Amino acid sequence: MIAIDWGTSSARAYRLGPDGTIRERRETGRGILHVPPGGFAAALWDLVGDWIAAGERRALLSGMVGSRQGWQEAPYRPCPAGPGDLRAALVAVPFEPGVSVRIVPGLSDADAAGVPEVMRGEEVQVFGALGLREAGLFCLPGSHSKWVRVREGRIGGFTTGLTGEAFAALRGHTILGRMMEGEPEPGEAFDAGVRRARDPGGLLHHLFGTRALGLFGRLAPAEAASYLSGLLIGHDVRENLPKGGGIVDLVGSGPLMALYARAVAESGGEARLGDADAAARGLALIGEGAEWA
Amino acid sequence: MIAIDWGTSSARAYRLGPDGTIRERRETGRGILHVPPGGFAAALWDLVGDWIAAGERRALLSGMVGSRQGWQEAPYRPCPAGPGDLRAALVAVPFEPGVSVRIVPGLSDADAAGVPEVMRGEEVQVFGALGLREAGLFCLPGSHSKWVRVREGRIGGFTTGLTGEAFAALRGHTILGRMMEGEPEPGEAFDAGVRRARDPGGLLHHLFGTRALGLFGRLAPAEAASYLSGLLIGHDVRENLPKGGGIVDLVGSGPLMALYARAVAESGGEARLGDADAAARGLALIGEGAEWA
Repeated sequence: MIAIDWGTSSARAYRLGPDGTIRERRETGRGILHVPPGGFAAALWDLVGDWIAAGERRALLSGMVGSRQGWQEAPYRPCPAGPGDLRAALVAVPFEPGVSVRIVPGLSDADAAGVPEVMRGEEVQVFGALGLREAGLFCLPGSHSKWVRVREGRIGGFTTGLTGEAFAALRGHTILGRMMEGEPEPGEAFDAGVRRARDPGGLLHHLFGTRALGLFGRLAPAEAASYLSGLLIGHDVRENLPKGGGIVDLVGSGPLMALYARAVAESGGEARLGDADAAARGLALIGEGAEWA
Repeated sequence: MIAIDWGTSSARAYRLGPDGTIRERRETGRGILHVPPGGFAAALWDLVGDWIAAGERRALLSGMVGSRQGWQEAPYRPCPAGPGDLRAALVAVPFEPGVSVRIVPGLSDADAAGVPEVMRGEEVQVFGALGLREAGLFCLPGSHSKWVRVREGRIGGFTTGLTGEAFAALRGHTILGRMMEGEPEPGEAFDAGVRRARDPGGLLHHLFGTRALGLFGRLAPAEAASYLSGLLIGHDVRENLPKGGGIVDLVGSGPLMALYARAVAESGGEARLGDADAAARGLALIGEGAEWA
């Protein structure tokens, strides 16, 4: 089977064996933003045409490829939802004769105030990372960080923060960026930002304090990006880590993983790093036993 | 006397009578960012040279003109500070013979965690708006909003939020901006944002919710900028309005004043609108009795 985690800005493709093992993997920057309307079949052929030519007959896709801007909209399924719920709701898209292509739907939820939540792709990664466990708290760092609560093998609910996008906008387009050199690193300045997030006053006040610390020479240009990152991730962790700590399974890849791990530890929790191929395992799990006819 | 509130992006100049009444006023976009190093004397001459030629011999300046990037640095005075403390710390700058030019220093403070606070210009506006009162809570909306606590006629402390700059960065440079048309208005969508700020979950989560509400058609493009503004100003008010409400004196001008007034009212406080010339009255108060020799 072919498994593809096809997001906004990139696609990660796997060729899986019958038992779900990864035989080949490849990644491309051709996310859905870079595929023209009507161009998804051709893009899939570009991406994994050689695997299809070699005999693969099934492709299972997750992520933004199932959004309104993707290949075909796969309507959100409400929480709670397990792998079986997703499997029952796969959306077929037309492709070559003899080759079945299915899209996994995303999940929706709502917080206590009734404000909606959505995700596409992260649910598959969580099921891939869950393994044999039945419960856990998962965090998927990113532009829109996701905190996902799993109970009895199903995703019971989740919470999203605009953490990564807010960092980029604040760094790139406010006075804070002018005092910064370099990229965030998981060190002392990052920790100080995480601790600051626990102070009263709120995020907007803490953001101005970043500027004021720089003005008084208490935050060097080489430290400021790390401090700001710690502040934002610290707020994200503070709102989502249960009081008293607990274990957080981090799912994803890239430099944000080390930063989140450090912020969780600094906040009294225990972070575990998942591997970068959780999507492949989740897609294998959902694809197995699905209706492929 | 000439009184000038000289900020980063604009300068507001007043010609005052001996009793502090405003005889003339003018405003220019020539903030300190638009004055080259060493060019402040010439800029002052451009701005109010006709008033000097007509016999004015004293000019009192407040705002960022006293910063490191301004005409001459006037070191911050710590809180608590009253008009007399500022008057005793005026900084003289060289100008034409026979004409005295003085800069009012800004104020510094620190929050409970020891993180510094700074302001330049707002302290003068607060003293101008205070009138005969001895105490009050003042809010000065802006890119960096200030909440200023006055006790026994002196500024006891203050708190800054990066509220306005965060709004501009989030609107201009995140996915939120793509769902927005028009400018924030003090209406129902703004109120909904203010109420949302009181929900649990934190600002980063509330920001993503703005996106999700739009995705589900529950926030129209024409409402979204107002909702986002309400969310940010709501967080600002939530952190700074005393529990149980109370009176907030708003000082400043422009469309933010109506938005803050509405947010304070929606949050259970009572907002009073000050006039736009508080700086002139504050400078008159400080200039009166100062050492001009």
